[in-house]
Amino acid sequence: MASGVKAVILLSGGLDSTTTMAIARSEGYDLYALSINYGQRHRLELDKALKIASFFSAKEHKIIDVDLRGIGGSALTSDIEVPKDRGVDEMSHGIPVTYVPARNTIFLSIALSWAEVIEADSIYLGVNILDYSGYPDCRPEYIKAFENMANLATRAGVEGKNRIKIKTPLINMTKAEIIKKGIELGVDFSITHSCYDPPEEGIACGSCDSCLLRKKGFIEAGITDPIKYAA
Amino acid sequence: MASGVKAVILLSGGLDSTTTMAIARSEGYDLYALSINYGQRHRLELDKALKIASFFSAKEHKIIDVDLRGIGGSALTSDIEVPKDRGVDEMSHGIPVTYVPARNTIFLSIALSWAEVIEADSIYLGVNILDYSGYPDCRPEYIKAFENMANLATRAGVEGKNRIKIKTPLINMTKAEIIKKGIELGVDFSITHSCYDPPEEGIACGSCDSCLLRKKGFIEAGITDPIKYAA
Repeated sequence: MASGVKAVILLSGGLDSTTTMAIARSEGYDLYALSINYGQRHRLELDKALKIASFFSAKEHKIIDVDLRGIGGSALTSDIEVPKDRGVDEMSHGIPVTYVPARNTIFLSIALSWAEVIEADSIYLGVNILDYSGYPDCRPEYIKAFENMANLATRAGVEGKNRIKIKTPLINMTKAEIIKKGIELGVDFSITHSCYDPPEEGIACGSCDSCLLRKKGFIEAGITDPIKYAA
Repeated sequence: MASGVKAVILLSGGLDSTTTMAIARSEGYDLYALSINYGQRHRLELDKALKIASFFSAKEHKIIDVDLRGIGGSALTSDIEVPKDRGVDEMSHGIPVTYVPARNTIFLSIALSWAEVIEADSIYLGVNILDYSGYPDCRPEYIKAFENMANLATRAGVEGKNRIKIKTPLINMTKAEIIKKGIELGVDFSITHSCYDPPEEGIACGSCDSCLLRKKGFIEAGITDPIKYAA
């Protein structure tokens, strides 16, 4: 690819978005990292995102505030309790309470705004459907519908140029495959963060859905997870 | 309609969104007003929105913060100057500098999140295509694509119920028709606000695109505009 082609990467600080960032870099894009401070339970993931953007020499990293605590409706944005010690089978049925209504749509919309301003070619989002099959906004048909809408919402829809592509390279990968891909692309997973409910800074709980999926992924990949767990 | 059916209304405090609110009320909905504090040039429009939500006895009124100044790219969210004294012909060609990239998509996405939490039936948005034909995110094909995406993004897409409708009752109306409709439905236009660049509180500049279109609309409707203009 010609140098100077821009991509906006939605970067949460987790292992999926970090691997997605590595993939966008490997595809030759200039990286514009975007993290959203949406009132998540802890700001720790934003500190991780800062380190990760710096690790990948992003051209720019924006942290944009949007107050989803004002909307609520999820264990991640209200006082609903984060479930612990669920089996992987249990996680994969229905929509979990950690689902934040329309979160990916809000995040992609803000990414779309920035992408339009800087004339980016693509937006990268690290969703995948295998682990949490219940999240409606991780499915390929949703991503395709968002891309279609995005190209009607912006100058592209009127002027017919600078169409935006929504790229989700992890969408059909298992957690183990994502971890292996990240390692292959030089990701330092010690600076990533996955826990929904860390008991203290720098320690993951080890028993929320996100920790359980991460631990299982590292075991299946045959790689040692470099982060610390309470359990 | 059965009472208790909910609609989220995007309420900016301007005459279009206020008339849209009146239409949603006339259609029998319980009103859930949503205003977005996105870093617009002045908070005045949020004060107006509070008065309007109260005037219509909204069940609830939320003001949600999202920092679009952090993205920029528009005269409304950066230091780009608001154009003055343009002819209506000039306004209707091309995309004006007051276009905020992906703003309607971001606003509708936040409305979608709230609509999902409260199980609303519809989201109302006061866009119209006649005055500013250049705004990509006011066109019917965009609204239709958003509605399609919205019903894949949320529980509706997985569970097949509670589909959200995006309603834009003003989309094909002239400003004069909107004003007449508002008067017919009892709107007090003295509490609405349209100016992009008010010289002082309670006074509209009279020469930005928004003031010029409003003044023209009142003249064509044969109604006296109750607000004060500097010019």
